[in-house]
Amino acid sequence: MYAPPMSGSGTDSTRPLATEPGPVIILVEPQLAENIGTAARAMLNCALTELRVVRPRDLFPNPRAYSASSGADIVIDRARQFRTVPEAIADLHRVYATTARPRHMIKPLVTPRQAAAEMRAQIAAGERVGVLFGPERAGLENDDLPLADTLIGVPLNPGFSSLNLAQAVLIIGYEWYQAADTTPPRELVMNDTRPATKEELLNFFAHLERECDESGFLRNAEKRPSMVRNIRNIFQRAALTHQEIQTLHGIVKDLANKRVHGKHRRD
Amino acid sequence: MYAPPMSGSGTDSTRPLATEPGPVIILVEPQLAENIGTAARAMLNCALTELRVVRPRDLFPNPRAYSASSGADIVIDRARQFRTVPEAIADLHRVYATTARPRHMIKPLVTPRQAAAEMRAQIAAGERVGVLFGPERAGLENDDLPLADTLIGVPLNPGFSSLNLAQAVLIIGYEWYQAADTTPPRELVMNDTRPATKEELLNFFAHLERECDESGFLRNAEKRPSMVRNIRNIFQRAALTHQEIQTLHGIVKDLANKRVHGKHRRD
Repeated sequence: MYAPPMSGSGTDSTRPLATEPGPVIILVEPQLAENIGTAARAMLNCALTELRVVRPRDLFPNPRAYSASSGADIVIDRARQFRTVPEAIADLHRVYATTARPRHMIKPLVTPRQAAAEMRAQIAAGERVGVLFGPERAGLENDDLPLADTLIGVPLNPGFSSLNLAQAVLIIGYEWYQAADTTPPRELVMNDTRPATKEELLNFFAHLERECDESGFLRNAEKRPSMVRNIRNIFQRAALTHQEIQTLHGIVKDLANKRVHGKHRRD
Repeated sequence: MYAPPMSGSGTDSTRPLATEPGPVIILVEPQLAENIGTAARAMLNCALTELRVVRPRDLFPNPRAYSASSGADIVIDRARQFRTVPEAIADLHRVYATTARPRHMIKPLVTPRQAAAEMRAQIAAGERVGVLFGPERAGLENDDLPLADTLIGVPLNPGFSSLNLAQAVLIIGYEWYQAADTTPPRELVMNDTRPATKEELLNFFAHLERECDESGFLRNAEKRPSMVRNIRNIFQRAALTHQEIQTLHGIVKDLANKRVHGKHRRD
């Protein structure tokens, strides 16, 4: 489920559009159609497709929402509109609400990462789950929060923690997606090449060291063993491919030839 | 370092603006001043303040960048402009580049979460680290990628993986911030209240069960023990506070009174 371009055109029709069940994203009284569109884009980035909109200020669906979604039309096409939060959550079993830390409420509060892990388990158990997002400026109202089982707070810079709507949706969706993603944390992209065998690498070491002996670079007999070890570690660290070993052989050979010819010229 | 509002006004001057050293964010040939502003906002959300801009298309700094940053002026004020990527990275020790999976390059590739963990260790060791982001449409050029030690790819919906510039910056910054954040994954926000003691809870159980015995709700002697256990588990699960126990005592008392008076009326 690796998915790369961080910029560039939105849809790659050669790759599958993920459509597994996920949490419903519920935007409560969004102010701008554009923000519904950018939220839809963030949803589809994270393979979320079920959008609900409660009392949008702008007429919905809206051409500006489609335009701002950069191709996430499928999310807006399928979006459902509701007049109240209770109607929008009626068929769900679990509801999370994104919010500031509540000052006058006794309520469970989770991080987005924890919410993602919980939602994965709930949805795998056949439950239907939704996440409420409040209006751009004010956030969710105090009367909406008791309708949620659990609040989600995003740990961010305490002095500058406000996210726009699409970015809040992206953080929740991103954690949802990562919670089931199996991309290796670190890998060496090899494409169609293969790593060099150790024999190929050792042959290159022998070639390089022979030429360095001849050029005089390794003439200090006392230091030679540690210098050889250090040089070998440089190339060992590069995790070379078969083809790259050939390239390095060519570089060493040409540099050595040049030195020989240079000497000839200087003679 | 908990930071809640996910919408609402940007800056909370009563809370500290985090300023610890972090990776330098380097925007290469950004097309729109607005995108520099929204990237600056995402940076400050994540306590990142060092921005570099290489060959921006729009004049920089720019009023539209300030406006789009929603108050992250400090990031734009301090931003530095460069003519080339080599100049922009010259003083750094480690460079990451956000990109699609490269098709013709043999290169280490990490997830944002892995990159964040590595950058935390590098910066703690006194190294200076930067992250390259390409232009909105095209991404980084092939000649820029070999200037980076390591590529970062965001695992997202393979069929719809393109993020806008600010959202790519947000994902990297978010993971950077989470990597050192100590917010408990799940907590019950208690504000100024305290959990009920078990004695308070047991007193409430006794009150409730006494009234349920009197009302006849628990009259089935065979089922009574399991009914009592189930009812106790409902209230146990709610993790009640001292004050909430008082409220529940009041509710039970008033309901029981109403029943008595009701009976009187019906008599």
